[in-house]
Amino acid sequence: MSLDEFGLIERIRRRTGVRADIALGIGDDAALLQPQPGQQLVVTADTLNAGVHFPLQTPAADIGWKTLAVNLSDLAAMGATPRWCTLSLSLPEASPEWVDAFAQGFFALADAHDIALVGGDTTRGPLSLSVTAMGEVPTGAALRRDGAQPGDDIWVTGVPGEAGLALSLWQQGRLDVSQPSADPALEQLRLRLARPTPRVEAGLALRGLASAAVDVSDGLLADLGHICKRSQVAADLLGQALPASVAATACGDEVAFNALRATAGDDYELCFTAPAALRAQVSESMSCVAVRATRIGYIRAGSGVHLSNEEGVLQAVAKRGFNHFSG
Amino acid sequence: MSLDEFGLIERIRRRTGVRADIALGIGDDAALLQPQPGQQLVVTADTLNAGVHFPLQTPAADIGWKTLAVNLSDLAAMGATPRWCTLSLSLPEASPEWVDAFAQGFFALADAHDIALVGGDTTRGPLSLSVTAMGEVPTGAALRRDGAQPGDDIWVTGVPGEAGLALSLWQQGRLDVSQPSADPALEQLRLRLARPTPRVEAGLALRGLASAAVDVSDGLLADLGHICKRSQVAADLLGQALPASVAATACGDEVAFNALRATAGDDYELCFTAPAALRAQVSESMSCVAVRATRIGYIRAGSGVHLSNEEGVLQAVAKRGFNHFSG
Repeated sequence: MSLDEFGLIERIRRRTGVRADIALGIGDDAALLQPQPGQQLVVTADTLNAGVHFPLQTPAADIGWKTLAVNLSDLAAMGATPRWCTLSLSLPEASPEWVDAFAQGFFALADAHDIALVGGDTTRGPLSLSVTAMGEVPTGAALRRDGAQPGDDIWVTGVPGEAGLALSLWQQGRLDVSQPSADPALEQLRLRLARPTPRVEAGLALRGLASAAVDVSDGLLADLGHICKRSQVAADLLGQALPASVAATACGDEVAFNALRATAGDDYELCFTAPAALRAQVSESMSCVAVRATRIGYIRAGSGVHLSNEEGVLQAVAKRGFNHFSG
Repeated sequence: MSLDEFGLIERIRRRTGVRADIALGIGDDAALLQPQPGQQLVVTADTLNAGVHFPLQTPAADIGWKTLAVNLSDLAAMGATPRWCTLSLSLPEASPEWVDAFAQGFFALADAHDIALVGGDTTRGPLSLSVTAMGEVPTGAALRRDGAQPGDDIWVTGVPGEAGLALSLWQQGRLDVSQPSADPALEQLRLRLARPTPRVEAGLALRGLASAAVDVSDGLLADLGHICKRSQVAADLLGQALPASVAATACGDEVAFNALRATAGDDYELCFTAPAALRAQVSESMSCVAVRATRIGYIRAGSGVHLSNEEGVLQAVAKRGFNHFSG
């Protein structure tokens, strides 16, 4: 079955509602949006390519979710309120069933965060999905990478490494990414890879508390390294303090999980720093948004990321994580 | 030669300068931008895929130019001032030479219109380029597709059809898109395809004059059809009034040009409507920005686009232009 470009756009456009901050949505040469006074615009763009950023077998609905999730995660790391996005969709063939399933996953997450799709296009080509997400933050209130100070605590949300373990289990043939697993622990790991939770509410709650933040897309060490580099500080990470994974342990993969949790990417958790004096407020604010947050180390003067081993001895570690063009 | 993702980003980031409307550029999770009070944000996204939107032989610098041009053209059609953009670049292999040439073409046009690259990513994949462009327009002043009124003149800038003729000559093996042509007329046609001129200044000059506007990307009839549909009016196009192409005539292709000038896409000219009472002001404003503008018909009550033949008889015409998924 064939479906023309305008038909594809129309299928997606139907999902976009009417809002006061959208003077003109999809259907003209461009959208007309109404920014709020006193706010800065927060803009990020990320692309997912089939076979590079997700296994080819990934269901369309999961691809739709993840395409938006990776961009919302960047807005979350800035402490921004999501507002609008554009979507460029390259498809090898026009399949209304695929587009509808993709849209189902995309809008499930979009609706949860009230972000409106206001433009984009569909083109013929290898499966590729580019989103530019826009949000707003009160002027001066954004969480940046360059504000970490010696003495700050280092925190992380959720359980970094679970998405990486899921990918590893898929590569071993132990996890099917194309459908839900009957095993609850495996299913939890599959969802961490297929349907990552962008920590938007945590980012908003951290305004005025966190001194720096980054989302964990390339791995904890690599992304914390970005904070250190931009803030011109060093990080001491306590290996024993990194969050354990109940699901990994249930699958009998505790050792494998522990080996990759500091370096695996794709979790889209937040790693942030905050003054030690605000420790109680940080804990309380994360409880309020029902997000697990764990203190995993300290910022000090110096440079680089240092990870303590089981004996508590700190060692400098490579700062590189997942890199599409490396190797 | 290999070049990691961060190296590619760094090559591009170096080209981005410091501006008052950019609080934080490339290098954090997202950019922080400062919109102007009293302005609406104008947002558009367009993707170009190799082999679909440009011949595979197209030089990288021309691809860079065109990737931005098609998006600036959408901002122009809204009467917007270009401000910021993001770029998602999928590359089959990391080639610094290719990226530098691409950036040369991209920034030649970006600098001319003072639009800043503030984000994006590079990924491994088939050659594909997605831009989201952002501009600003005073609240209520945007040129839209839905404002055409019966009695309005229909205008077009430049010479629509020249890009289409160039594509046809390339398909016939008469034009080499990979290098400049020694023949000045052929070269003019090649440049219309390879380096289209987004009519940004014309769009700005038409604020307060044009009642509706659209950019000619899918063909004059198809794009004028969008204005008619959104404005709920009909258009009578005078075939004899459509701009002639000096270059096409010089190449001996006047007949071929005349046959496709109403339907060929890829010109990125503006088609707009304006009250007949403002005819002199429109002419003067287009002269001020050194853009050729031609009156080519009239808006009336009714629906659809109607084109007069050589005897001056109006005929309803199909409204479809280039459509990536049709056929």
